[in-house]
Amino acid sequence: MPQKPFGLAVKAVIVDDEGRSLLIRRSRANRNFVGEWEWPGGKSDPREAFDDALKREVREECGLEVEITGVVGAMAYEMPAVHVVLLCLETRVVGGKLKLSEEHDQFAWVPFQQYAHVDLVDNVRPFMLDYAAKRGMGR
Amino acid sequence: MPQKPFGLAVKAVIVDDEGRSLLIRRSRANRNFVGEWEWPGGKSDPREAFDDALKREVREECGLEVEITGVVGAMAYEMPAVHVVLLCLETRVVGGKLKLSEEHDQFAWVPFQQYAHVDLVDNVRPFMLDYAAKRGMGR
Repeated sequence: MPQKPFGLAVKAVIVDDEGRSLLIRRSRANRNFVGEWEWPGGKSDPREAFDDALKREVREECGLEVEITGVVGAMAYEMPAVHVVLLCLETRVVGGKLKLSEEHDQFAWVPFQQYAHVDLVDNVRPFMLDYAAKRGMGR
Repeated sequence: MPQKPFGLAVKAVIVDDEGRSLLIRRSRANRNFVGEWEWPGGKSDPREAFDDALKREVREECGLEVEITGVVGAMAYEMPAVHVVLLCLETRVVGGKLKLSEEHDQFAWVPFQQYAHVDLVDNVRPFMLDYAAKRGMGR
């Protein structure tokens, strides 16, 4: 049996001038995690650089142009047909206008201190809370 | 002025059956960090998937064939001409024979508990020690 392949997914923590970050809610157009909140991002295409994938996914999902300012971290999770490595980047907005695709039905700018009260996507929740705790402490 | 580009580097934590991990020492063939110890790995090529890059770099640097078993984490560091995002993966050996390239002149299988006593590459040292502390606690 061939080994299950690996895929690289990227997510953007988009922080505004007041230190709040953008969370978007998964709509019924998705097969899973409907109604849960997440950072914008998604799967990189084959042969696509991670930073290009990040910018493309953020543009597609919320209309914003971002540039990378740092690294949040990385984690792994399993999907039926692929091992996913999730790389999360810190970003800031440099253009565009916030407009959701059909994959999400709501957005919110959320202070890191409030992450624990949000229904975050289940498989990334501990990772998001760890990071929010560090940021909330004034990093 | 064009923005400095991003590059993706990958490193492998190769763990043996006794829980020790492979560190290799940078030789005088390198321009920097000579004599310091690191995990095997290096820069991904353009359009090269991160897992292919990891396997290729490990093969080139130490002759081993590895498969990915998990994620260590990610961090960023600056080089003169590029922002580097470093993605570190947990791996195990599935083939090959340990043989260093000219880029390294020594290897050692090191328990995570002993990382603090090793002259680790300076820019990744805090990241490596954080991970070693987690692993050393029996993760």
